[in-house]
Amino acid sequence: MRIAAMFLAMVLALQSLVGQVTEDKQWEDQFRRLPDPALMRSYMEFMSAHPHHVGSPHGKAVAEWIQQRFTEWGLDARIESYRVLFPTPKERIVEMVAPHSFRAQMREPAVDSDPTSRLQDEHLPTYNAYSVDGDVTAPLVYVNFGVPEDYEDLERMGVSVKGAIVIVRYGRSWRGIKPKLAAEKGALGCIIYSDPQQDGYVQGDVYPDGPFRNKDGVQRGSVMDMPLYPGDPLTPGRPATQDAKRLPKEEVETLTKIPVLPLSYGDAQPLLEALRGPVAPPSWRGGLPITYRVGPGPARVRLAVRSSWDLTTIYDVVGVLKGSVYPSEWIIRGNHHDAWVHGAEDPISGMVSLLEEARALGTLVQSGWKPKRTIIYCAWDGEEQGLLGSTEWVEAHSEELRQNAVLYINSDGYGRGFLGVGGSHSMERFINEVAKDITDPETGLSVWKRSQLKRIADTKNRDDRGTLRNALDLPIGALGSGSDYTAFLDHAGIASLNLGYGGEDDGGIYHSIYDSYAWYTRFSDTSFVYGKTLAQTVGTAVLRLAQSDVLPFRFSNLAVTASRYAVELQALVESMQQEAKEREQELSEGLYEAIDDPRHPALPPTLKDVPPHLNFAPLKNALERLTASAAAYDGLLDRVQKQQEKPASAEGLKRLNQLLVRSERLLTSPDGLGNRPWFKHLLYAPGFYTGYGVKTMPGIREAIEEEEWALAEKEIVRVAKALDALSGLLEQASGELEKLSHTN
Amino acid sequence: MRIAAMFLAMVLALQSLVGQVTEDKQWEDQFRRLPDPALMRSYMEFMSAHPHHVGSPHGKAVAEWIQQRFTEWGLDARIESYRVLFPTPKERIVEMVAPHSFRAQMREPAVDSDPTSRLQDEHLPTYNAYSVDGDVTAPLVYVNFGVPEDYEDLERMGVSVKGAIVIVRYGRSWRGIKPKLAAEKGALGCIIYSDPQQDGYVQGDVYPDGPFRNKDGVQRGSVMDMPLYPGDPLTPGRPATQDAKRLPKEEVETLTKIPVLPLSYGDAQPLLEALRGPVAPPSWRGGLPITYRVGPGPARVRLAVRSSWDLTTIYDVVGVLKGSVYPSEWIIRGNHHDAWVHGAEDPISGMVSLLEEARALGTLVQSGWKPKRTIIYCAWDGEEQGLLGSTEWVEAHSEELRQNAVLYINSDGYGRGFLGVGGSHSMERFINEVAKDITDPETGLSVWKRSQLKRIADTKNRDDRGTLRNALDLPIGALGSGSDYTAFLDHAGIASLNLGYGGEDDGGIYHSIYDSYAWYTRFSDTSFVYGKTLAQTVGTAVLRLAQSDVLPFRFSNLAVTASRYAVELQALVESMQQEAKEREQELSEGLYEAIDDPRHPALPPTLKDVPPHLNFAPLKNALERLTASAAAYDGLLDRVQKQQEKPASAEGLKRLNQLLVRSERLLTSPDGLGNRPWFKHLLYAPGFYTGYGVKTMPGIREAIEEEEWALAEKEIVRVAKALDALSGLLEQASGELEKLSHTN
Repeated sequence: MRIAAMFLAMVLALQSLVGQVTEDKQWEDQFRRLPDPALMRSYMEFMSAHPHHVGSPHGKAVAEWIQQRFTEWGLDARIESYRVLFPTPKERIVEMVAPHSFRAQMREPAVDSDPTSRLQDEHLPTYNAYSVDGDVTAPLVYVNFGVPEDYEDLERMGVSVKGAIVIVRYGRSWRGIKPKLAAEKGALGCIIYSDPQQDGYVQGDVYPDGPFRNKDGVQRGSVMDMPLYPGDPLTPGRPATQDAKRLPKEEVETLTKIPVLPLSYGDAQPLLEALRGPVAPPSWRGGLPITYRVGPGPARVRLAVRSSWDLTTIYDVVGVLKGSVYPSEWIIRGNHHDAWVHGAEDPISGMVSLLEEARALGTLVQSGWKPKRTIIYCAWDGEEQGLLGSTEWVEAHSEELRQNAVLYINSDGYGRGFLGVGGSHSMERFINEVAKDITDPETGLSVWKRSQLKRIADTKNRDDRGTLRNALDLPIGALGSGSDYTAFLDHAGIASLNLGYGGEDDGGIYHSIYDSYAWYTRFSDTSFVYGKTLAQTVGTAVLRLAQSDVLPFRFSNLAVTASRYAVELQALVESMQQEAKEREQELSEGLYEAIDDPRHPALPPTLKDVPPHLNFAPLKNALERLTASAAAYDGLLDRVQKQQEKPASAEGLKRLNQLLVRSERLLTSPDGLGNRPWFKHLLYAPGFYTGYGVKTMPGIREAIEEEEWALAEKEIVRVAKALDALSGLLEQASGELEKLSHTN
Repeated sequence: MRIAAMFLAMVLALQSLVGQVTEDKQWEDQFRRLPDPALMRSYMEFMSAHPHHVGSPHGKAVAEWIQQRFTEWGLDARIESYRVLFPTPKERIVEMVAPHSFRAQMREPAVDSDPTSRLQDEHLPTYNAYSVDGDVTAPLVYVNFGVPEDYEDLERMGVSVKGAIVIVRYGRSWRGIKPKLAAEKGALGCIIYSDPQQDGYVQGDVYPDGPFRNKDGVQRGSVMDMPLYPGDPLTPGRPATQDAKRLPKEEVETLTKIPVLPLSYGDAQPLLEALRGPVAPPSWRGGLPITYRVGPGPARVRLAVRSSWDLTTIYDVVGVLKGSVYPSEWIIRGNHHDAWVHGAEDPISGMVSLLEEARALGTLVQSGWKPKRTIIYCAWDGEEQGLLGSTEWVEAHSEELRQNAVLYINSDGYGRGFLGVGGSHSMERFINEVAKDITDPETGLSVWKRSQLKRIADTKNRDDRGTLRNALDLPIGALGSGSDYTAFLDHAGIASLNLGYGGEDDGGIYHSIYDSYAWYTRFSDTSFVYGKTLAQTVGTAVLRLAQSDVLPFRFSNLAVTASRYAVELQALVESMQQEAKEREQELSEGLYEAIDDPRHPALPPTLKDVPPHLNFAPLKNALERLTASAAAYDGLLDRVQKQQEKPASAEGLKRLNQLLVRSERLLTSPDGLGNRPWFKHLLYAPGFYTGYGVKTMPGIREAIEEEEWALAEKEIVRVAKALDALSGLLEQASGELEKLSHTN
């Protein structure tokens, strides 16, 4: 009787599980049929019809319209508002005063075939938000992309930017880094222009003949020092509520130190043409039909910018589907709705895809589906200025999020092509499995397979190709910054994913008035099939996260990736040692004098200290433990899932899942990174001098890069402790899992 | 008494040797003080005052003037004439007939600051010599540099050049290869233009503001199929004497198969701008402010060229200093005197340096110096058209040369910077030793040291830098073609060296009317200090070669280099195997369909056969023997020279030197290379599809590249036999050396 009862219980449990799996699969299949390209097109047409930047009438209308849609589809939707500092320009001047005079027009003209380009009165002028006010006149110096190596080159050319205005091209580093570094080097002002080599005629026909940037197109954009902290500059770490305590503007550290304005290449060419001084090195040369020279001067330029520094209201839209079983486990999904101008591609393409996800989920609910966990759909405002909406929201809800947030999934503008994934490596296996179930609309392959073959095609090394061919999971990228996951991942320690499609048809309308419905429906995902695919991809992830009994975190992928970072860091120190020794030898053997051309003289580089050997042992020991505890946990989970034993105890499951939810938090430190405490994650951060680009294990890596050896060793210990804490949690989680599998 | 006599003999021998060394050193020092920059400047002014191409009045005047100088300086000088086929254009048309009309002007205007640029009536028009006559109208296709990989890219874009006119840019491959390959692919005509990325405004200011090519500057040049055979097209392998047996023009294989004309970038831009079709891949894009596209069409172009196919007289100047001890061992030294137009840089800079060498040697002779070997100074005509002067001379004197020629040393136009050396690797040690004794005028270092440090600076790999730092000899390059050493080395098997300075200030006036005295004295070696350095370098080599008792051939360097070639060839086969297998796998896994963008479709590449494993054993065995016999010979020579024993027997020395003279001949085969029997050297040849670029072990390498596996194995055996013959000679030479050292 006892044995028979046990047998019966097992059969029932299996049936229930198989039934559950089948049912989940059916809901997923139903879900993936729902996103509708025609609706996406109509959403885009409405939202991009007028400029909808922060503080614009249409921006507010878009937020309200999204709230109405969410409500109509059955989400519990509200708008959350914050008051943020948002400068808009009153005066913008770039003029050359010598050797001849020229004034930049800084105007993007209307284009016949693009109706919204005619709304010139509504468009935000071309400018870089959060540039300080200023009016400077100085000799011009061309500094290429304005990254640290460019300044090293410049130094060897004997050219200084001290007291100069720099002209720098977009690309390579995030724009906000360019004036930051220029100011540190003593420049008085900064002009950032779009070189045709990056996204103009060098790449293809220019708008409106083709998708690329024409001579008048300007890339607007924020130059706030977001690697210090994003969000409202006046309320770091706190929500910018109506009555929040605000910093005086003078104390804000995230404004630029020098005035900055962006230019089109039409406006930049006369300035660049007027430079003399050394011919720019080959890698500095862009696509203009000129000899690129560095200066300084004889071009003298006046750069003046003055803004209205107003507080403006931003509108985040939040729509909730409450969980039926685990209401306090939150799956959060977001995309921003604000744009620099019309923003059909950035961000509306991503937004319309998110909307179709939300509508489809609402439809499932109407058909009887119940999310076990709470699903929160968000449409952020003020992303373009500095991730304002998402940052303030995270800061406002930090306690609840810390308790409840399972995962944040972000998207932004997308295009046609290949699935791109960045995020927490504990989600790597999960998102790979999702990608294997989504069909690419151009090839009919799974988007995973298409990605895999693309990576094989892009890989030169034979062994690496072999690894990719045999890979169970394709590695996902680590996240830096540049979209709304930043506050979730880096500030609140919430596991995050950022998903999108792209790689075909890049175009050159980014942050210009030409990023329009007319452009998008002519040159990008014109039939919105990738919008549908993106909705299918993210929606499938949301469904699985909402319904899975055990949250689908896996840690071996994280252990492998973190171990790779440790190897990279050791290799970095070694290569710095070798480079410093090589340079020492080259200086002592007179190499630089020997190769110098007296007609194009270059100064020798400066002697560098040879880095000491660092103690990586704590990190390596922690990684050994993490590797073992992750393997144990993942293996146990595999075994449990393979046996199709259903962990039965709801309480036990909850305890296990609560541990898993906390896992990413353990990778943060409440103190944050040394030079920027808002950033709390110890594995990922945007680079202090690269901006959007990620620095993994940033405390260690940037200490090494800045040659602060004692600090680097402290950071090694700090990361090791965090990994140890995670190992502890995983050991506990394995215990829970073990108990669960026995209580069946 | 016997012991005393032996002792006395030894002391006398040592004294004599030490005395000889000291005396040689004194002559060398005296020699190196003699070359005079002011004289070089005056020679250049005279020679470049008028165009002096083949058949021009000033060309003949220059030859006669050189003869007079040689005579004046004590050389026994004569002019040797040949009658060669030299086409000059009667009609040149490039015009676009659709989508709109445009006619290329093909004219280089006069420039105020450059007096000789005004001699427009004397200038040869812009054209490519040895283009066949033709008049074709066809759609245009842009083919980048027109090298084989470009045609592979084109095929994947689905674009064919069959029935089209190709427009191709100068660079990467020798110009004659471009129409050759285009014709093989079915093109009807070929336009070669100078893209500003290569030597125009992308590189620096254009003439006359700076040294680079302006929008009207055209690179003239020969498109004769020189990799088949250089020299007069009508008399392959025979001297083009007055009454030589000549091929009918119709049977000549070295004319192009399709008409060809060169253009400036000013003339090319409208044609390129009118192309549609796929956007050119990134590496195909030049420096014009346009979107580079591939076509075909809609641009339709008419290309017409018609020439006078006349026989013209060329004038080689030959000046001899007869050897006092070994008159039938010849050291030959040459530079060409003809130019495309004024040719201040190419070739007059090298010519004036040679003249000062000759004058300095004459001065030494007047001071009592006697060359032991015969020294022959040559000034070649018709180099630009196809190495006419040197080739006909070598063909005319082939028997004597085969007997007597020790070494040929070539130079051509030079610039400022670093010593560049290519040549026979049996001369590598020798020329390194010369370079260690020459002072660089810009740095005061030895030119060897400056070269070494430059190479270290240019080397990314740490181990390779270590090798360079510890090197006794810097490796010299192998010779392809492109100047007058070709017939000596590749046809007659005479050990050769090609020397020059360069690497600073490249400029962009090559083969245009702007390669003038005004240009050279403003932008290149303006004070002729490198002209002096080049004369010192080559003259020192000539002196040592003329005077050394044992000719300074060394073979370990050759053995090392030849072994490296064998390793490269094996690696080539392996990489072809891997590539073929990789491609097979990629095709079978559907990679190309997966990564294809349907809006920019690309065809998959074709399946390749996987190369078989080849039998390299004969080559490797021959190299083992060569390595051993070279080490034995070099070691013995070292020991003999270190003991300062003077090999006394004149007969023995002569036997030894005669063996050494023959060493390079053994590396040739009377049958020559399979597809071009004129080229007889088995280690070096210009590439059949690269032109100037060298192919080492060309029979094997090109058989592998062309996937002719059976032929490759035959060629391996042929090279192995040649190396074995050389080993045999070295073993004999060691025997002679041994005998000599005992007979002291």
